[in-house]
Amino acid sequence: MTLPLNPAMAATDPPPVMEARRWLQGAVFPPDRPLINVSQAAPVEPPPLGLRQALADAALHDDAAHLYGPVLGMPELRAEIASQWSAAYGGTILPGQVAITQGCNQAFTAILSTLAGHGDEVILPTPWYFNHKMWLDMAGVTTVPLASGEGLIPRAGDAEGLITERTKAIVLVSPNNPGGSEYPAATLAAFRDLARAKGIALIVDETYRDFDSRTGRPHELFTDPDWDESFIHLYSFSKAYRLTGHRVGAIVASVARLAEVEKFLDCVAICPSQLGQIGALWGMRNLSQWVAGERAEILARRAAMVGGFAALPDWKLLGCGAYFAYVEHPYPMPSDELCRRLVHEASLLMLPGTMFQPAGSEAGKRQIRIAFANVDAAGIAEMFRRLAALRL
Amino acid sequence: MTLPLNPAMAATDPPPVMEARRWLQGAVFPPDRPLINVSQAAPVEPPPLGLRQALADAALHDDAAHLYGPVLGMPELRAEIASQWSAAYGGTILPGQVAITQGCNQAFTAILSTLAGHGDEVILPTPWYFNHKMWLDMAGVTTVPLASGEGLIPRAGDAEGLITERTKAIVLVSPNNPGGSEYPAATLAAFRDLARAKGIALIVDETYRDFDSRTGRPHELFTDPDWDESFIHLYSFSKAYRLTGHRVGAIVASVARLAEVEKFLDCVAICPSQLGQIGALWGMRNLSQWVAGERAEILARRAAMVGGFAALPDWKLLGCGAYFAYVEHPYPMPSDELCRRLVHEASLLMLPGTMFQPAGSEAGKRQIRIAFANVDAAGIAEMFRRLAALRL
Repeated sequence: MTLPLNPAMAATDPPPVMEARRWLQGAVFPPDRPLINVSQAAPVEPPPLGLRQALADAALHDDAAHLYGPVLGMPELRAEIASQWSAAYGGTILPGQVAITQGCNQAFTAILSTLAGHGDEVILPTPWYFNHKMWLDMAGVTTVPLASGEGLIPRAGDAEGLITERTKAIVLVSPNNPGGSEYPAATLAAFRDLARAKGIALIVDETYRDFDSRTGRPHELFTDPDWDESFIHLYSFSKAYRLTGHRVGAIVASVARLAEVEKFLDCVAICPSQLGQIGALWGMRNLSQWVAGERAEILARRAAMVGGFAALPDWKLLGCGAYFAYVEHPYPMPSDELCRRLVHEASLLMLPGTMFQPAGSEAGKRQIRIAFANVDAAGIAEMFRRLAALRL
Repeated sequence: MTLPLNPAMAATDPPPVMEARRWLQGAVFPPDRPLINVSQAAPVEPPPLGLRQALADAALHDDAAHLYGPVLGMPELRAEIASQWSAAYGGTILPGQVAITQGCNQAFTAILSTLAGHGDEVILPTPWYFNHKMWLDMAGVTTVPLASGEGLIPRAGDAEGLITERTKAIVLVSPNNPGGSEYPAATLAAFRDLARAKGIALIVDETYRDFDSRTGRPHELFTDPDWDESFIHLYSFSKAYRLTGHRVGAIVASVARLAEVEKFLDCVAICPSQLGQIGALWGMRNLSQWVAGERAEILARRAAMVGGFAALPDWKLLGCGAYFAYVEHPYPMPSDELCRRLVHEASLLMLPGTMFQPAGSEAGKRQIRIAFANVDAAGIAEMFRRLAALRL
């Protein structure tokens, strides 16, 4: 007899990145054409030496680094985020309005669980971040897709007609994964106004904010003294300090909301990794100049992506920013088939748009996400040589 | 306008350990009567130096320690668990039947999410582990309590009548938290037979197995070649190697089940802490003798607890083992009131039975859990002096 399977879990797609890795099994890459893996938004180099030394010192000399900490995170890290974010966003954020999580995916699952349950609805612009869709599916929450407009920017006006009595939140990602678009401050303000008017939450995942090409603050949401009545901010330390393997993220929300988040995190995490938090705190206090250099490098790679696609007129660059280029390909086949062929015929691993769009979406079949952040200028040039030489 | 609150989350109790910590706020402990905190099952000392050095070395020299790993965990750690568990339990466990999680609480939430959803039922013996109950509540799964029998051992025969069409799993914890009881192999076999006959899962959380007072394997469940058709094993590395702050646990289940678990973990974790996994693997390869010494120390403390309560005839020791003594107190007040008074009148922090029993349970009002593992012989003697001197 087979054990029970939760139907909501059965209906949830498997993790796209793991699925794409399986495409590599059995693939043979010629010595003169090694694999270029642009499937995942992940650093491939470790954090700077100073941060690694701080972790090593803590492992050896800080007993607390090995023991349970508070469910909502290390007080010093919560305070540092409150202080730096208040300055960066021009608002007032208190340490009690900050919670630390085991990465930003967990931040999303925790906050969502406090807002919506079985039978509720949440609005996600398309193309969406697949882990958001997966979590909603397994929680029995209906995802309501909101087609993004020009430049892969969603419009609050389009969202308004999608809101029902069951809608609990709108989730935005800016700079966007997978689209690469940087949402204008006015767009975010319009979504906040809509959320406030309807009594639902506006969640903005700002995982890629450190690589925003704009100067100054990306939005004015925190300048509203009552920001925590409608707005919830999510963040990840994985990208800025290359801490992906340590799993540290954050939620900024009302104190009352975080008391609900604490229930979820107590069951799913107990506490975030203490060493990861020590690394994040060290990074916040010591790496601002280094991160500025990283940002400059990412922006240079982004410019190379824009230039490369300008020279490939059959391809259409829909959005480019953060770690991602999101493109329309010119081939008469669905993107998932194309991406599998690219592994074998061009030693390129990219994720098809079908992984970021509702099932059966025609748009998804024409689209591809390229996570270019790991690839240096020479690698990007080589990728474009291979795309230009494709004969499918 | 207030933001939506998921009613299932609103109906979930807050974390008991955090709640109990709040009782300490404003409490003043006389210099000659410092706090003895027996509220949490947590080591208070760091791991042995060798393990700390292994973590420091990895932080400095192993780039992969900082970067994403596979969702289901580090292959070497999965293989080591498969190998050591196969030997310890006298069965065949393959690396593909092992998944690594960010602690054993997360292992429970992941496996449960694959089995049961909104409207389903899961059977938990009482007293239960509060995080299991909290997770079921927030997932909209109904917890069906199964009163434990003599010696805080539940009976499969009692469970049979509780199973309905909505029942998806029975969850046991052995050695038990909070009860301290070590379930006989025959009890576990009877529950497995019941689960198999009914087509539901038997989940056994063996977080405290390294401190079992019995020699040899604690059960025969893995000796069944088809064990993975009914049995799911959970484990924690937090206690054996004092890695609580690194969050490493494990699930042992069928390969097909772990493909479903992977969906959950991809959304909630992406991967477990790489350094935590490095520490767990180092511990498995180097600390078996050291853990044997830790076990001997815990068993000595357990003997001191049994002896201490034998000299306090008004108190009744219901169960004692793993890290816990579970007792009935003699006072004419509910246990939560008593525990708050113990903070101020005896500088003792214990958790009341009300935190481990269904709401309104009369049994819970008479019971207290004492997590004695952190307290040395002198501390245990002092605790008993204070209990003997109580005048309430």
